[in-house]
Amino acid sequence: MRIDLNSDLGEGYGPWVMGDDAAMLGLVSSANIACGGHASDPETMFQTLRLAAQNGVSIGAHPGYSDPLGFGRRVIPMAPAEVGRMVAAQIGSLQGVAALAGARVAYVKPHGALANLAADDRSVADAIAQAVKVVSPDLALLAISGTALEDAARAAGIAVFSEIFADRGYTPAGRLVPRSQPGAMIHDAQAAVTRLLAFFDTGLMPVVGGDPIPLAAQSICVHGDSPGAVAMAREIRSRLTAAGVTIAAFL
Amino acid sequence: MRIDLNSDLGEGYGPWVMGDDAAMLGLVSSANIACGGHASDPETMFQTLRLAAQNGVSIGAHPGYSDPLGFGRRVIPMAPAEVGRMVAAQIGSLQGVAALAGARVAYVKPHGALANLAADDRSVADAIAQAVKVVSPDLALLAISGTALEDAARAAGIAVFSEIFADRGYTPAGRLVPRSQPGAMIHDAQAAVTRLLAFFDTGLMPVVGGDPIPLAAQSICVHGDSPGAVAMAREIRSRLTAAGVTIAAFL
Amino acid sequence: MRIDLNSDLGEGYGPWVMGDDAAMLGLVSSANIACGGHASDPETMFQTLRLAAQNGVSIGAHPGYSDPLGFGRRVIPMAPAEVGRMVAAQIGSLQGVAALAGARVAYVKPHGALANLAADDRSVADAIAQAVKVVSPDLALLAISGTALEDAARAAGIAVFSEIFADRGYTPAGRLVPRSQPGAMIHDAQAAVTRLLAFFDTGLMPVVGGDPIPLAAQSICVHGDSPGAVAMAREIRSRLTAAGVTIAAFL
Amino acid sequence: MRIDLNSDLGEGYGPWVMGDDAAMLGLVSSANIACGGHASDPETMFQTLRLAAQNGVSIGAHPGYSDPLGFGRRVIPMAPAEVGRMVAAQIGSLQGVAALAGARVAYVKPHGALANLAADDRSVADAIAQAVKVVSPDLALLAISGTALEDAARAAGIAVFSEIFADRGYTPAGRLVPRSQPGAMIHDAQAAVTRLLAFFDTGLMPVVGGDPIPLAAQSICVHGDSPGAVAMAREIRSRLTAAGVTIAAFL
Repeated sequence: MRIDLNSDLGEGYGPWVMGDDAAMLGLVSSANIACGGHASDPETMFQTLRLAAQNGVSIGAHPGYSDPLGFGRRVIPMAPAEVGRMVAAQIGSLQGVAALAGARVAYVKPHGALANLAADDRSVADAIAQAVKVVSPDLALLAISGTALEDAARAAGIAVFSEIFADRGYTPAGRLVPRSQPGAMIHDAQAAVTRLLAFFDTGLMPVVGGDPIPLAAQSICVHGDSPGAVAMAREIRSRLTAAGVTIAAFL
Repeated sequence: MRIDLNSDLGEGYGPWVMGDDAAMLGLVSSANIACGGHASDPETMFQTLRLAAQNGVSIGAHPGYSDPLGFGRRVIPMAPAEVGRMVAAQIGSLQGVAALAGARVAYVKPHGALANLAADDRSVADAIAQAVKVVSPDLALLAISGTALEDAARAAGIAVFSEIFADRGYTPAGRLVPRSQPGAMIHDAQAAVTRLLAFFDTGLMPVVGGDPIPLAAQSICVHGDSPGAVAMAREIRSRLTAAGVTIAAFL
Repeated sequence: MRIDLNSDLGEGYGPWVMGDDAAMLGLVSSANIACGGHASDPETMFQTLRLAAQNGVSIGAHPGYSDPLGFGRRVIPMAPAEVGRMVAAQIGSLQGVAALAGARVAYVKPHGALANLAADDRSVADAIAQAVKVVSPDLALLAISGTALEDAARAAGIAVFSEIFADRGYTPAGRLVPRSQPGAMIHDAQAAVTRLLAFFDTGLMPVVGGDPIPLAAQSICVHGDSPGAVAMAREIRSRLTAAGVTIAAFL
Repeated sequence: MRIDLNSDLGEGYGPWVMGDDAAMLGLVSSANIACGGHASDPETMFQTLRLAAQNGVSIGAHPGYSDPLGFGRRVIPMAPAEVGRMVAAQIGSLQGVAALAGARVAYVKPHGALANLAADDRSVADAIAQAVKVVSPDLALLAISGTALEDAARAAGIAVFSEIFADRGYTPAGRLVPRSQPGAMIHDAQAAVTRLLAFFDTGLMPVVGGDPIPLAAQSICVHGDSPGAVAMAREIRSRLTAAGVTIAAFL
């Protein structure tokens, strides 16, 4: 048994810090690094990329809506083709800085509201998959398990990996419970890990208001920006390891 | 005799337009396309890149200070290494969108205050040359003739081409007369072309307040954003052609 | 018979210009001036405010979503209370610059997607009306005729005036036809004025796909940023004047 | 003996937090609140203003260069008149939100690079003083002790108060040691307070590389964003109080 641990990192902005990236980079196997859309700037990208490379962590571009004040958690109305161009610009931007940092971008994972939209809106998912493929055919996609983005990636002929969330509640449709609703966040690390281990045993994920649903996963997303994020990640890593699971990048 | 005509294009921003890019793309052989720093956004990049590719025009990335309100004409205090990362991010961003537009970025030309600073500050010039080289070793630099950026490019081992300005006055030190001073802009197209033809004959450029100076040039920069820009470019192109000069991209 | 002509002005951004404000300010009686949200910056505000004051034109604050790339034409998801704070910040910003320009802000008119949302969403309309009232109780609101914003202003006890659009099509519900749909814009000045004169006779406005509807209006909105805007405004002004209508600010 | 304690607060940006404002607001008597220039946005302004009002703390507008990525610590080249308009827009913005928060802006204190420039450049200082006066004649200025901004405020006929810094080193010219140089920051709270108490006894401030200089002060600035800021502020407050000094707003 082997799984990847990924986290959204490099989400500072100029003088502002978000989460404890240095600690998280010692715990995860893949880092989704913000690209100047919902967060980050060339300096923050560079420092994060270098730190990720030093930690031997696999690096993903983490594009999001160009809306720092909303942290990429608001849907900005855009045509699918516009989304594709925005995503291409952000991936390219991170690739440019990665070259300077001696790092390599291996995959792409959409952020926040963009990821949620691409989970259900196939035309947006297609635009993202197409942008990824055209920018660099060897980039993979990391998608929320069971979503339209997985289908779009497969249709585009690019590698796709699926993630589940350690600390987010699921709806019966396999989507994340919105942050504004009860059950959205699992704050207790023990409960989160117990849920994960049960999922690995059964392949079934508990949901809010329904029966557990089957999900496939090559990666577990742990948040880097919530209070207790580092403790949660540490707990997940140590208990998974203790249970005989190997933590390793999917790519 | 053969020379390139280049112009700064794609300098709109969201709903705002700057100059008549479609007309200019029918006249120049190289287009320096803004990368989301001093101007532009993914949509503007995409439309400009596609139009440039359709016109068979050579494409350069045109990075500038991330200061749209100042249009990249103000020096933003930054360490040279920070400049390098900003430039790498902007080149990468344009490359990403170029992939979607079916276009290829062939060279890099710094914009405005950044170009002026890199003309005299070797450490900034080195940071730019290094960023260009590391992002893509096959990218060339287009530099103001006679500047530290040319030296930096040669020291870094990357191809470099030199430009002179059709409609800007020169100082005895071979720098552009600042826009705030008399003699900065040559508004009369006839006078500009006559000056260019004399320069091609003699290799000497007239300056404000001194004797003409020798300059080397593979390209002529014509502005796309001043009133009368298209008329100026058309006049230059037609009179150069009439004088037996071939207008062709340097790359 | 007397009516106000209003137009959205001061919608440049740094080096970028939108429309011909100087010409429009010679034709309208009220200017809705952008406040740094969907467009403008302190310099653009100052120049526009001064020009409006010199032309004796009544001045309104024109707040919009803080989304220059979308020009305030995209709904950015925000809670009504957040909208109120954004609007208060933008009105205050224009008032601050108006003091320096020797101008006075007399009213507030929401822009674009914010105005359309406030036309139907009473909680957003209430948040705007409350913000206007609390910032300055002597500010009036200029609202699209027949909308929730009018109701909200009356409920808040602030003066409200209603506008109709010279060059926009209406739906049977009295809303503007979205710009993406046929019939959204009336490009022919003659047709627009003829429609206006008929409306003044009957009080009934033609709609796309239905019977004419009754609308009240103290002001006519003419656009300043579409091609032919100045010609349209000039035609409206001269034919209204010829028909014996006095063009004068409502406030 | 009585003195004010002021701190720069409300310097978050969208999802990003800077310092522990809630703790600082329990210790200071005046809060300089960012206005959306170098930091902040309408939501952050609102929350900070309300918290300051609830704590009975005097409120100042804290305008800075519109440069969030540089946190207002870089000089952005602008003409003095442009600085005045930028400052007017920012003060107005905070006043607008303050009305909604039930708070009142009593004074203005420039931030970072703008404050340092206005300390020595009289034309910039005059532009700021003029903007403050024109926006609201009852606003005071809080200036670094011994600077051109004090002179400008007196010449403009507006109230001015002077501040010294608890944790910043001084040059023999009475300016702050730049953050890039040794001696810029005093990190030890005990040393900072001992220096302050000696200053209150003698009126003389120690400097880096010279004899102590006389400074006048109605306020002490304590930083809210450095590590240990709250501990430093608490130490200063308790030892000053123990020494019989009353901590109270100057206005």
